[in-house]
Amino acid sequence: MKIPSYVCGEWREGTGQGEAILDPVTGEELARVTSQGVDAAAALQYAREKGGEALRRMSYQDRAELLGKMGEVLNANRAEYFRISLLNLGAGESDASFDVDGAIYTVKYFAKLGKALGGAKMLREGAQIPLSKTGVFSGQHFLVPLRGVAVLINAFNFPAWGFCEKAAPALLSGVPVLVKPASPTAWLTQKMVEDILKAGILPDGALSLICGSARDLLDTVREEDMVSFTGSAETAARIRTHAAVLQHSVRTNIEADSINSAVLGPDVLPGSELAELFVKEVVREMTLKAGQKCTAIRRLFVPRAAGKSIGEALVKRLSAIKVGNPRNPEVKMGPVVNKAQQASCLQGIEQLKKECSVLFGSGSFQPVDANAADSAFVPLTLLACEDGKKAVRVHDTEVFGPVATMIAYDSPQELIAMIRRGSGSLVASVFSSDAAFLESFIMGVGDLHGRILAVDSAVGAQHTGHGNVVPSCMHGGPGRAGGGEELGGLRGLLLYHRRFVVQGPTTTLGNLTGAGGDGNWLTA
Amino acid sequence: MKIPSYVCGEWREGTGQGEAILDPVTGEELARVTSQGVDAAAALQYAREKGGEALRRMSYQDRAELLGKMGEVLNANRAEYFRISLLNLGAGESDASFDVDGAIYTVKYFAKLGKALGGAKMLREGAQIPLSKTGVFSGQHFLVPLRGVAVLINAFNFPAWGFCEKAAPALLSGVPVLVKPASPTAWLTQKMVEDILKAGILPDGALSLICGSARDLLDTVREEDMVSFTGSAETAARIRTHAAVLQHSVRTNIEADSINSAVLGPDVLPGSELAELFVKEVVREMTLKAGQKCTAIRRLFVPRAAGKSIGEALVKRLSAIKVGNPRNPEVKMGPVVNKAQQASCLQGIEQLKKECSVLFGSGSFQPVDANAADSAFVPLTLLACEDGKKAVRVHDTEVFGPVATMIAYDSPQELIAMIRRGSGSLVASVFSSDAAFLESFIMGVGDLHGRILAVDSAVGAQHTGHGNVVPSCMHGGPGRAGGGEELGGLRGLLLYHRRFVVQGPTTTLGNLTGAGGDGNWLTA
Repeated sequence: MKIPSYVCGEWREGTGQGEAILDPVTGEELARVTSQGVDAAAALQYAREKGGEALRRMSYQDRAELLGKMGEVLNANRAEYFRISLLNLGAGESDASFDVDGAIYTVKYFAKLGKALGGAKMLREGAQIPLSKTGVFSGQHFLVPLRGVAVLINAFNFPAWGFCEKAAPALLSGVPVLVKPASPTAWLTQKMVEDILKAGILPDGALSLICGSARDLLDTVREEDMVSFTGSAETAARIRTHAAVLQHSVRTNIEADSINSAVLGPDVLPGSELAELFVKEVVREMTLKAGQKCTAIRRLFVPRAAGKSIGEALVKRLSAIKVGNPRNPEVKMGPVVNKAQQASCLQGIEQLKKECSVLFGSGSFQPVDANAADSAFVPLTLLACEDGKKAVRVHDTEVFGPVATMIAYDSPQELIAMIRRGSGSLVASVFSSDAAFLESFIMGVGDLHGRILAVDSAVGAQHTGHGNVVPSCMHGGPGRAGGGEELGGLRGLLLYHRRFVVQGPTTTLGNLTGAGGDGNWLTA
Repeated sequence: MKIPSYVCGEWREGTGQGEAILDPVTGEELARVTSQGVDAAAALQYAREKGGEALRRMSYQDRAELLGKMGEVLNANRAEYFRISLLNLGAGESDASFDVDGAIYTVKYFAKLGKALGGAKMLREGAQIPLSKTGVFSGQHFLVPLRGVAVLINAFNFPAWGFCEKAAPALLSGVPVLVKPASPTAWLTQKMVEDILKAGILPDGALSLICGSARDLLDTVREEDMVSFTGSAETAARIRTHAAVLQHSVRTNIEADSINSAVLGPDVLPGSELAELFVKEVVREMTLKAGQKCTAIRRLFVPRAAGKSIGEALVKRLSAIKVGNPRNPEVKMGPVVNKAQQASCLQGIEQLKKECSVLFGSGSFQPVDANAADSAFVPLTLLACEDGKKAVRVHDTEVFGPVATMIAYDSPQELIAMIRRGSGSLVASVFSSDAAFLESFIMGVGDLHGRILAVDSAVGAQHTGHGNVVPSCMHGGPGRAGGGEELGGLRGLLLYHRRFVVQGPTTTLGNLTGAGGDGNWLTA
């Protein structure tokens, strides 16, 4: 089987051998993927002309309805997505759910959000600005949909959610989507696109798909397009320095590496409810999707005095987790996506070991119901770093697997300084019931993070999770994390709109057909 | 005289010969400028540590007060800035006023705006987002000042306004500024910085200055800093691809080339009041600062039938304008900034002539009270392009001087298609009393512009001007124009803030010390 692409309103199979899509548990080849011979320039132009035109004729409300139908179609085919997730990602029920159900939830969320925008075709932003003494001449800012294509270049770890969290706000904005999933897991994205297309929900050209390598995809992007990328810092730099992107100042949104932190507050006693919640969250983050989440906890900071008992509590829980073939109902953690990722993780662990001791995880690891030679498992690994101030690697090495490092801290000041050495992250979480500490923590690291999760004993288990991207809250982070901003409710639409101001006759500004909203998209 | 830099709390003179700062009318050397030996890395670090710390301890209101005082100091020294403008830019009264008074007005505007933000130290954005059924756990987005330096790399044409329009929102945001004016006109910026520093208004490290070449200025920028650049597309690409900018995803705001348009509507009869306003605005844009404004009209679109009489009206007005030494009170237009810019303009005119006929302007031009050989004058030049659809250069060549091209159009559709070929501009203006045409124009080109100026007969002369950047309205544009967004009232602060979301105890979010605003910065 060859995973096809969908461009210019047609399914097209790439030529040549392409890359293999594998079962990471058995090593078996499931399909092949290649974009060779797929005309990206024509695909972009078709999307702009057909898809863009049609989407822009509709209102936000109309497009929200499309999203609602998309959500239904995806929901109806959920079982098939779980099946593909199991085969291609070695994902058990909860791993598949995190990706697939997260995707469906996000589409439905934007469907609901878009309804509130009503029959408008662009949004007013802010109040009218008086520009003449007589009141006849004023200014008004607007947000108007981009006239180009949203080119979504996605990461392998979220073939479902990664597609939907970007496509939903883009389509709601009235911007056609061309999605290029990462080759190793393109199958699931392809299946979802196929189901959406089959259902005939979207206008022609609104949704395109290129499976396989990006090749010349960016060569013809222009000022009206945008490129949203999730993946490595190295590829991000290639996108940012691409000649067409530079020449046309093409808007980019980048999510790259992130050395996320979780903190146990100085006030929290080992064994307390908060400490247990912290331990539980760390283990969940290490094991869910085998740690292959850009938001996963990589560094956990613990008061030096609490280190020993927190370490023991973590090791106890980690020891109980069966790692192996997710087809075995006792298994709680599966493999990483392929041998290349496995090798990269093992190499990263070796790097970290130069600065850390091993609390849990060993070389003699044997996966349940799987052959170590053919499969892509990485042993659950918890490291400990006694001198986080001196350490370098723990603050700059993202091991994209079931690996985390516990770092001792002696004071809140030192804690904040160490966290900042991540040089910009997606998320930091903090578990503490000391309101003053929480506040100083938020103020101390907030500017270098996209999101802070704070849990006190009143919140307890009601928090939404360290690694969970809630569509109403922004996702992204500065610096190493790429500097992007996605979702955050209607903020998620900003990426796919252009802001401009009209200075003109006050009546014209007031009557502009299609301009909706009360000027405050923040609360819409 | 050597123009000094101000770094690490001290005035420092660069070493070596440096570049000459000239009088563009006489060719006389006024000063020299060199950044050689000035330690940019130390300057950035000093600004971050001293300036940033001190500014962040203050509230928006406190910093607004500083801006108010800055405005007073600049106003008190206004005459000296006019003197330097005359010497170094060949600027007459109105040219100097546009730059200097524009700068002072912008500083005062932000002083007033900032007062309304009160005692807060960061801003709430949007409402609290319920994240748990019990209401105990919520989300709240915030805007928090960047912890780094705002590195402002400015263009030669606005040494006063270019500095202040960026520095005012940066300082109000609590972000220290390091300004690097363009070498040919660094003197005026240096003088303003000197006056502000002398007055002892700002905390140590809040304002730094590097005069001369940028050298290694960007080598040590990091994720907490931002770089705002106004200038050529070529330099913009160098900034965007700079290793440190890429590695740390340093936020950039770029304003580059722009082929701005002005349109006479199909309904406007030659000789009518609106046609006269259009002609007046075109002439003003061509002559003010000798056309050296990034917002200046480069392309004027006129209905084919009106072309002849509009052309004649323009030529009549242009013929009456005396070009030469601004010390002569009869002179209405001065030189461009130097020989290099003069050569670039003359070359650009030759390029355009390949597609255009000359309506006004000739090679035999002789400036009043100036020697053609030593001075940097460019003849006022109006070109005409009969076939704008076929033409290429008129849509992509920015001649940064007193040069514009009149292009005939046959239908609104054709007009919009031709304007879009500018590939993203700062501003387009339209003169028409046909509400339907105005609306279709705004919707047809708005997404490719930062600003649209629409003038009907009710507005008449009350409009704020095609090329005038009003601080309450956004300035910037997509594509060729660089993709940046500045000013626009409080939107101007976004560049110098980081957005993040806190998911946490509802009470903590509500009580966060220093978090101000009602969540709607759009209307603050």
